[in-house]
Amino acid sequence: MSASESLMVPARNKTRQLMVGSVAVGGGAPVSVQSMCTTDTADAASTLEQILRFEEAGCEIVRVTVPKQAVLDSFQQICEQSPLPVVADIHFDYRLAIASLERGASAVRINPGNIGSMDKVDAVIDAAAQKDSVIRIGVNAGSLAAEYDERHDLELWEKLVASSVSFVEHFEARGFTNIVLSAKAHDVTTTVETYQALSRELPQIPLHLGITEAGTLRQGTVKSAAGLAILLAQGIGDTLRVSLTADPVEELHVGWEILQALGMRRRTPELISCPTCGRTEVDLIGIAQEVDERLSKMRLPISVAVMGCVVNGPGEARGADIGVACGKGQGLIFVEGQTVRKVSEGEIVEALFEEIDARFVQR
Amino acid sequence: MSASESLMVPARNKTRQLMVGSVAVGGGAPVSVQSMCTTDTADAASTLEQILRFEEAGCEIVRVTVPKQAVLDSFQQICEQSPLPVVADIHFDYRLAIASLERGASAVRINPGNIGSMDKVDAVIDAAAQKDSVIRIGVNAGSLAAEYDERHDLELWEKLVASSVSFVEHFEARGFTNIVLSAKAHDVTTTVETYQALSRELPQIPLHLGITEAGTLRQGTVKSAAGLAILLAQGIGDTLRVSLTADPVEELHVGWEILQALGMRRRTPELISCPTCGRTEVDLIGIAQEVDERLSKMRLPISVAVMGCVVNGPGEARGADIGVACGKGQGLIFVEGQTVRKVSEGEIVEALFEEIDARFVQR
Repeated sequence: MSASESLMVPARNKTRQLMVGSVAVGGGAPVSVQSMCTTDTADAASTLEQILRFEEAGCEIVRVTVPKQAVLDSFQQICEQSPLPVVADIHFDYRLAIASLERGASAVRINPGNIGSMDKVDAVIDAAAQKDSVIRIGVNAGSLAAEYDERHDLELWEKLVASSVSFVEHFEARGFTNIVLSAKAHDVTTTVETYQALSRELPQIPLHLGITEAGTLRQGTVKSAAGLAILLAQGIGDTLRVSLTADPVEELHVGWEILQALGMRRRTPELISCPTCGRTEVDLIGIAQEVDERLSKMRLPISVAVMGCVVNGPGEARGADIGVACGKGQGLIFVEGQTVRKVSEGEIVEALFEEIDARFVQR
Repeated sequence: MSASESLMVPARNKTRQLMVGSVAVGGGAPVSVQSMCTTDTADAASTLEQILRFEEAGCEIVRVTVPKQAVLDSFQQICEQSPLPVVADIHFDYRLAIASLERGASAVRINPGNIGSMDKVDAVIDAAAQKDSVIRIGVNAGSLAAEYDERHDLELWEKLVASSVSFVEHFEARGFTNIVLSAKAHDVTTTVETYQALSRELPQIPLHLGITEAGTLRQGTVKSAAGLAILLAQGIGDTLRVSLTADPVEELHVGWEILQALGMRRRTPELISCPTCGRTEVDLIGIAQEVDERLSKMRLPISVAVMGCVVNGPGEARGADIGVACGKGQGLIFVEGQTVRKVSEGEIVEALFEEIDARFVQR
């Protein structure tokens, strides 16, 4: 069996490629990771501070809400000073979308279903066309246009798809193709069914993936990883945002972990660490957490094993670039299959990072 | 399009059905959730205490390591008093496997590749056959038999599959069919490729899913959810264990969240909660966490929405059985689409649970 027969190495769907600021989306570009500010947009300093935290955690495109005219000056300052392209998040008022584009947004996210009329949507399209900006059409199960919401003959995912297709057709009929599309629901099965259908029916459109209102840290992480992995493993999706009711920096960590888990992108070293068991004789959870924390700040494409016993430990540690197999009160540090040091439990983390530093960090 | 055409509702693969103690595995039985004790098996009291915590968190089958003869008395006591079927985890010494079955294990987990010889494996098979017990064949990328490990013409997943198939054929040739099979690697792509191939080549064998050495809480949760969701959505998998370098109770929470996310089983209420944004005017993270904590102890198949604003809030809250949409310093509580109460921010959680209790809890 060759790799090409594997379901895990699908041909990426070749959507149209767009530029959101300096970031390519679609057409085979790396799947980009997004988040959304939780700060008050009127407070440019706090918002920019959060954007810098996002950037540090791997954010590539940032969304900022523009809820009213009064925040536009501040929004402009954010766009001017942000190191990341800014997408304005707009609800209800098309004038805010147009003003956001004038103030420097790289894209606007609108749900055409809650803008009021297609005439107003057209005004946004024309403003974006003039600036060569991008519009994300963000359809959401919680705010479907009434003409679809009331169709009792359709499943929810069919409503999301029908609504999305009609919007995309409207935009393209007006000659506007700088479109990214999202159609999110809060449950994984609806979201997966929706995106599978969108990928078939609108193969040219870059898709922004996410499970909306996914919940708190654990539930939201599981729902996002489950749903997005199924889609990404089928070649579906060009950019993503994990939604969590938690510090949004967590959204970025989880987004990157999903891409890393599927072997699609790598940002930080891979940590291989075993679940402890009745054989473990060191504080493995503590050691692994400390190693994880330090690795998360490094930008090295290496794998690091932290193993609690001699059963699987040496085997897995051997497969990693560097690792430690722990016995009673001590650890054996391996580098590319060779034991290089034997240290006491308290020295394991320091010794491991000394070896990583000496052997893998470029100077 | 009908539901049966959907990739999210696959026909479950019909494997052979076995009983691990009182728990059916395979043949369309609900996908069961497992964990493994981290206590010292010689300490029966602590191990039984941990098993009770596991049961409370939804564990259905528990694995306990049997590393040496000296723990057998304690192991027997654990088997006698455990409310859950116990699987003995054996490495290297086939006599421990046989003794564990004699002491009351419902199943043994062995890696035939590290037992020493197939004669010794046969002795374990015969002991299990006599007791009508189950053997989990646990192949692991970190401890492959040398004859496969050294085959440089094969990818890792091909080694895992070839090794697994040869073991299963050996067991079945001896007339023993009470087999559950796992073949785990620490990376998602290898694990997915392996199980996809096993499901094709050994369609009769119930499969135990897991990503081994998946890492600390966040990375392990993402890797497990991503890998297991891809497989489960293809109808692959009969029982699962999430491996985390963390409190093993977390493994159970994550395992259940995966099954709930895919709509395969439901144990606790579903929480729908939005990521906060610049529109949020209450402490939504705090409210959602408190609601999540209280819901996790309930056994109700309802959905509960905690929404931070009026944009998506009412729409999503309406779709849930009960929910709250928060505005500035207050919340509107909805039940099945109707607003029933308006309360101040500090009263939201209490009021929500009063309504859940009054309307959904059976007496």
